Amino acid sequence: MATGKINVSVENIFPLIKKFLYSDHEIFLRELISNATDATLKLKHLTSIGEATVEYGNPIIEVKVDKDNKRIHILDQGIGMTEEEVKKYINEVAFSGAEEFLDKYKDAGKDAGIIGHFGLGFYSAFMVAEKVEIISKSHKEEPAVHWTCDGSPEFTIEPSDKTERGTEIILHIAEDSTEFLEKSRIRELLVKYNKFMPIPIKFGTKTETLPKPEDAKEDDPAPTKVVDDIINNPNPAWTKQPADLEEADYKSFYRELYPMQFEEPLFHIHLNVDYPFNLTGILYFPKLTNDLSIQKDKIQLYQNQVFVTDNVEGIVPEFLTMLKGVIDSPDIPLNVSRSYLQADGAVKKISSYITRKVADKLSSLFKNNREDFEQKWNDIKVVIEYGMLSEDKFFEKADKFALYPTIDGNFYTFKELEAKIKDNQTDKDDKLVVLYASDKEAQHSYIEAAKKKGYEILLLDSPIVSHLMQKLETSKENLSFVRVDADHVDNLIKKEDTAISKLSEEEKDSLKADLEKVISDKGYTIQLEAMESSASPFIITEPEFMRRMKEMQRTGGGGMFGMGNMPDMYNLIVNTNHELVGEILNTKTAKKRERLINQSLDLARLSKGLLKGEELTNFIARSYEMIK
Amino acid sequence: MATGKINVSVENIFPLIKKFLYSDHEIFLRELISNATDATLKLKHLTSIGEATVEYGNPIIEVKVDKDNKRIHILDQGIGMTEEEVKKYINEVAFSGAEEFLDKYKDAGKDAGIIGHFGLGFYSAFMVAEKVEIISKSHKEEPAVHWTCDGSPEFTIEPSDKTERGTEIILHIAEDSTEFLEKSRIRELLVKYNKFMPIPIKFGTKTETLPKPEDAKEDDPAPTKVVDDIINNPNPAWTKQPADLEEADYKSFYRELYPMQFEEPLFHIHLNVDYPFNLTGILYFPKLTNDLSIQKDKIQLYQNQVFVTDNVEGIVPEFLTMLKGVIDSPDIPLNVSRSYLQADGAVKKISSYITRKVADKLSSLFKNNREDFEQKWNDIKVVIEYGMLSEDKFFEKADKFALYPTIDGNFYTFKELEAKIKDNQTDKDDKLVVLYASDKEAQHSYIEAAKKKGYEILLLDSPIVSHLMQKLETSKENLSFVRVDADHVDNLIKKEDTAISKLSEEEKDSLKADLEKVISDKGYTIQLEAMESSASPFIITEPEFMRRMKEMQRTGGGGMFGMGNMPDMYNLIVNTNHELVGEILNTKTAKKRERLINQSLDLARLSKGLLKGEELTNFIARSYEMIK
Repeated sequence: MATGKINVSVENIFPLIKKFLYSDHEIFLRELISNATDATLKLKHLTSIGEATVEYGNPIIEVKVDKDNKRIHILDQGIGMTEEEVKKYINEVAFSGAEEFLDKYKDAGKDAGIIGHFGLGFYSAFMVAEKVEIISKSHKEEPAVHWTCDGSPEFTIEPSDKTERGTEIILHIAEDSTEFLEKSRIRELLVKYNKFMPIPIKFGTKTETLPKPEDAKEDDPAPTKVVDDIINNPNPAWTKQPADLEEADYKSFYRELYPMQFEEPLFHIHLNVDYPFNLTGILYFPKLTNDLSIQKDKIQLYQNQVFVTDNVEGIVPEFLTMLKGVIDSPDIPLNVSRSYLQADGAVKKISSYITRKVADKLSSLFKNNREDFEQKWNDIKVVIEYGMLSEDKFFEKADKFALYPTIDGNFYTFKELEAKIKDNQTDKDDKLVVLYASDKEAQHSYIEAAKKKGYEILLLDSPIVSHLMQKLETSKENLSFVRVDADHVDNLIKKEDTAISKLSEEEKDSLKADLEKVISDKGYTIQLEAMESSASPFIITEPEFMRRMKEMQRTGGGGMFGMGNMPDMYNLIVNTNHELVGEILNTKTAKKRERLINQSLDLARLSKGLLKGEELTNFIARSYEMIK
Repeated sequence: MATGKINVSVENIFPLIKKFLYSDHEIFLRELISNATDATLKLKHLTSIGEATVEYGNPIIEVKVDKDNKRIHILDQGIGMTEEEVKKYINEVAFSGAEEFLDKYKDAGKDAGIIGHFGLGFYSAFMVAEKVEIISKSHKEEPAVHWTCDGSPEFTIEPSDKTERGTEIILHIAEDSTEFLEKSRIRELLVKYNKFMPIPIKFGTKTETLPKPEDAKEDDPAPTKVVDDIINNPNPAWTKQPADLEEADYKSFYRELYPMQFEEPLFHIHLNVDYPFNLTGILYFPKLTNDLSIQKDKIQLYQNQVFVTDNVEGIVPEFLTMLKGVIDSPDIPLNVSRSYLQADGAVKKISSYITRKVADKLSSLFKNNREDFEQKWNDIKVVIEYGMLSEDKFFEKADKFALYPTIDGNFYTFKELEAKIKDNQTDKDDKLVVLYASDKEAQHSYIEAAKKKGYEILLLDSPIVSHLMQKLETSKENLSFVRVDADHVDNLIKKEDTAISKLSEEEKDSLKADLEKVISDKGYTIQLEAMESSASPFIITEPEFMRRMKEMQRTGGGGMFGMGNMPDMYNLIVNTNHELVGEILNTKTAKKRERLINQSLDLARLSKGLLKGEELTNFIARSYEMIK
């Protein structure tokens, strides 16, 4: 038996990097600026613990584009490298650089803020450059060094006369990457990836207008000054303590994040945890519409202030992907699949931490300013309802603050609603019946009828509310939700009392026969009911169960299989106590009776929104005739 | 100046692979089966050119799960490796394996069918295995070899007593990957990635029922036989020539691709090109609904019969991502970003080839079976309209076969429509006016009015059609689309003739004053028009321009900024020649006049679908009173 060592041949590392390591060439800049930031933060750490004796000062990072010479320069004033260190960290492509450092200084804690893995990130430069130079002067008393490599494994190393501390990277941009020689492109990348990195990044200069001196004449131009153009905010709001921030700071950070967004957020949630994982961030509740699909991908994911992605699927629970804001965590694995993410223990913990924080925030908003919470309800209800449906833990918490608005503009929690309606809306089988409408306009006549009985009617119009009703009915006992047009008003909540019909049994039979003759082919189930004489003579109703099952199938993930395609089912309720119905019964001419029945049916269908097209046109023409 | 070689230290290649190479651990199986397939196809090639003297036979690949010993075995009967080859291809992690082979045999052309890069793909095994063994016997007269590696760079190599030609890979599954010891999981992966790979893949056995022998008694059980369970179809339809396939073959392949799909596809497009890029595939037009968002990610991308992804964004033009089917091309770069894909020259060519083939297919369907094409139109129009909007080249071709359905169920091409309507529907400024409705039911009375004039009315109801109208109006000259309810019928297409009003100017002024008194607060622009006496007395219209701009904003990417939020604007047309209008004028009592005007306005609003909620309830109550 022989043993040996697997040999990774060096000729192959560059194609490997170019082909597999990164899907997007543009991130070379993010990687190099991460390295520069890393080098600066390392120096800060070493000076703070007395291991480096130089003055830390106010170091910046500078990015310069030299289009004529096809070069990009990235300069930092950080720790720098000696010749030995260049050989170690650059020539040995490995994870070792940052890891070794971390090992040595791990007791110093997360403040050292090590970003990325120097070696590997650095080589991403070869995705866009045909030749790369490193000129570096260490903070130690050692000569500067100049390293050059053209993308083959051959490199050269020689002394340099650089005197300032820090590292300069010079990229000789390749023919296929000249897009990166455009200043506008580089600015775009800096804003995308480095907008909140912790060291100031200079990209050129800009002219600032100064206040006029007091003795200036009116016509004198205001004096100006050329200053460094710093593209980033090194201290974004989420890195600060909540106690140090005012409401206005959160709002202004929102505008920083979404400069094109004119609407203000409704409220924010500051995330801040360092055990058992590290996560900071600020989430905002924007105004939401009922269209669930268009509002995703608004939360930005950072790692140590470096932008990673705006797709947080798998990290943030799905119902919260409609929020906006920032999450920053070094503990989220990158470059892995979504299914891997969802199975990852740390990510699961992060996800449930975020859910909990959101629930707590909503709960405290509800408790501390109920009125304000009610005003915001319609803009946030979709998230909360979706959360209640998809996360049981969220349901438990939200059940205490989720609101049920009535058509009159009151907002009740479920408990309050129960107390309010239980006397009048408990049916003979001891079931609490919650009445609701989904559309104030379309169901107006039904709402009015129920109101006259003194019933409370909820206005439940969000797209997933039928799923939520289903969940409430199964998780609470003796409860049922019924839409106001599911039956005629006396049947919505069945009570013991029996109504007295003005008609005799014979009259009813005769009426029913007349009705069936005229209406039989229209598919309605005819039901004679003894209602109040002031109620409508004809009413069309739509049974709750079938309608809701079909709605749930349409909005996905529920209902009963195949029901979505079934035809709508309607009942025709005829109020035997209404004057008009008596008249129909007493009309002797068949033709006249038929006309009365048809016109009444048309009016009932109109009330339920079912009279359309040619039938409506004919109805209107008939009606013009009648008013003439 | 010193020079040197960059040294990629070997301790770091495994974490690199585990962390960066693949986002999804499950693909280890795809890679190993690709290698097995590769090894088999290499042997086939060598035997076909006489460089290997063994019998090729009918080799298969076998996958075995040994849960008790926590092992997965993958066996092939391919080319095998000698000790020298194992050292070269396995121990040198590199791209070299397959590339060297390709270099040597490149003249043999694509039939060699080399898949992947052996070395690199092989190492993906370490994503799920803590130890990997290779036992291989070359087709050459050399002893078999046994290689073992535990994921450190140390390996052992020793002779093996394997006698059958081919390679066996044994994975000792790691603790964190035990999911892959479930047979159901492995079957799922085999179906996902290897369903159409070119060498039969055996995964266990199954029992098949045989026909009963002729002399069997009635009660005898049917004989059974245990056979290999082959999970793949090595010769999927897209790898064959269109000439060798019947319509039924395409349909049965569709069911193979989408076993859960019950609807049949409308038609298919067979893609087959080998210059300047290599691409085969079959696209299917499914029945489409008007909901554009839910139907994406149905096209599967393969490379040499290996499944890669079902996200073809950037490869297939966006308007075609609603289709279903398969694309197989080795020329599409993988593991790159979508923005890179879109900029890639080869991918651009592929995308425009697919667009052209789709346009050609549609064109020939239109020419060869117009009736059938018309029947399918409503199911495919969204794709075609979207294509016409987004790809100018497609627009040019589609302009000849895109259909415009009328409300009577006729289908015209634009040219046919033009010929049909130009006499009756050219207005006094020589503009061709195309009338359309978006909803037969809701716009019924307006459609009827226009029909009486002998106008053709199109039924244009797809969600993006307002954008298409805008494009047609700007790309063709002297053309305008007008919805039937945009004005009263005499104004939809303005002609020279002037109508005679029954009312004098004084009467008109008096009528207008009366109307304004009653209606003024309702926001309608009142317009008196001398129309036919049989036309409606009151008509509500909605000007085309504003309505369309607002619609375009709602469906995205068009319209004028800010218009989406403006209130709807309506005109009230009063027909001065209608009897009822004369009656209003002659009614002396103000109260009675007001009642007439209000009831007429309500009927006009009802006809336009604007009478809702409380107003509708009141209207219905009033109407019940009137019929009593």
